[in-house]
Amino acid sequence: MELEFIDTVVNVRYAETDQAGVVYYANYMVWFEVGRVAWCRAKGFHYRDMEREDGRLLVVAEVNCKYRAPARFDDDVLIRTALASASDKVMRFQYQILNQNTRRLLATGESVHVVTDRQFRPARLPNRYRSIFFSSK
Amino acid sequence: MELEFIDTVVNVRYAETDQAGVVYYANYMVWFEVGRVAWCRAKGFHYRDMEREDGRLLVVAEVNCKYRAPARFDDDVLIRTALASASDKVMRFQYQILNQNTRRLLATGESVHVVTDRQFRPARLPNRYRSIFFSSK
Amino acid sequence: MELEFIDTVVNVRYAETDQAGVVYYANYMVWFEVGRVAWCRAKGFHYRDMEREDGRLLVVAEVNCKYRAPARFDDDVLIRTALASASDKVMRFQYQILNQNTRRLLATGESVHVVTDRQFRPARLPNRYRSIFFSSK
Amino acid sequence: MELEFIDTVVNVRYAETDQAGVVYYANYMVWFEVGRVAWCRAKGFHYRDMEREDGRLLVVAEVNCKYRAPARFDDDVLIRTALASASDKVMRFQYQILNQNTRRLLATGESVHVVTDRQFRPARLPNRYRSIFFSSK
Repeated sequence: MELEFIDTVVNVRYAETDQAGVVYYANYMVWFEVGRVAWCRAKGFHYRDMEREDGRLLVVAEVNCKYRAPARFDDDVLIRTALASASDKVMRFQYQILNQNTRRLLATGESVHVVTDRQFRPARLPNRYRSIFFSSK
Repeated sequence: MELEFIDTVVNVRYAETDQAGVVYYANYMVWFEVGRVAWCRAKGFHYRDMEREDGRLLVVAEVNCKYRAPARFDDDVLIRTALASASDKVMRFQYQILNQNTRRLLATGESVHVVTDRQFRPARLPNRYRSIFFSSK
Repeated sequence: MELEFIDTVVNVRYAETDQAGVVYYANYMVWFEVGRVAWCRAKGFHYRDMEREDGRLLVVAEVNCKYRAPARFDDDVLIRTALASASDKVMRFQYQILNQNTRRLLATGESVHVVTDRQFRPARLPNRYRSIFFSSK
Repeated sequence: MELEFIDTVVNVRYAETDQAGVVYYANYMVWFEVGRVAWCRAKGFHYRDMEREDGRLLVVAEVNCKYRAPARFDDDVLIRTALASASDKVMRFQYQILNQNTRRLLATGESVHVVTDRQFRPARLPNRYRSIFFSSK
């Protein structure tokens, strides 16, 4: 089954570069997070509210990233985010990072999240989010 | 009256550099924070405990930094921190950033902090910290 | 004389918050940089090209920020940037940071930049940028 | 064969936390980098010099991290770094992140690096580093 990718774009900040002249590798994880926030918004809710109102967090349990080509200052970078799998306890997101202009693939990645309460104890997805996550697989 | 500077050293991380080949300017504020934490420790307490146990934060109200010379990856950087003034509501810290090996002055700065509770409402310094801050002026 | 402010908006990233539940103070300097890049774009050029093609950098010599109210995760933050003064050696930018929805002022700041070559030696503004900077005062 | 881990310690910065009250997940990659720099130093050279003098970079091609338990502000965090494999073109590092006081394992990770020149073209490890990397496997 085809994954449904949600797109969002960031412009590379000077702060995100390093002395090699390209984006520092840890910043791709920040972009993954920007992608997840955009995914939630595209699905009709704010991740912020899940934390604030429902007291549920999607804590990162695992992340990986493969770097193909560098991103540079002032590049427009396309972040594509898809939900790869979801239960009411664990979720898996996939990411593609592309140069928005050239469409060159810069990186791919994946992250695994567990649903927890504010004390990081395992919890279940609040009911009102279940249909969103389960229909998006 | 002479200020009493507390010293701590950080090694410049690759993550802290930018594409100009030097440390990105915002990271000096992170070093100021490292300096404040070292200052507290030198004075016999952990800033963490003031937040956690006493529910009091030293919220930054103002900061400035003058940059004299660049810091580079893998430099050992000396952060010197002094309390310039303190009431039970407002504190002012001063900073000197030097290259630890050459003793060259890289930057100077200052920050103003207000004591607040966890909801960022103005508050007073907990009693047990008063003697520390008031004798360190 | 009235300053001409250029506007750009960022959405607050989770990465930009700290354990106090608000945006960490050093990140406002990153937003100032985002504001400068937007200012250049509004004036018809890319700051990237000044570095890459002309070998001229606008190195930060000084920065200050006054914090009025916290920014929080997922807030849309309005960055307003104006050129306050410019010679062919030194430039001064002013910033206003607002909550885009409530229009509440979150912070104000200023930065001073010197024109240098790639080795951080004092230099002059390339000719093709003079009219842009001198007419924008 | 047992891997040889090199140890280094960092104190968690306020800047590294997020609004969940723990260290933001991307910062573990920064700690991995701190670990690699410490590994090089323990092996008798500075990674900085490989870039500066030999024009060779160890560009990150892949990274992953598994998060077991959160790190918090002011924790002393032990970064343990080992070279898992090395050719003159590709290297693999492994990491263990522990709470220095409790010895609790916080995270494990791995990164793959390719040797490149300054233009990110594949290159070979400079001769003077070959014995270091090949004997450390």
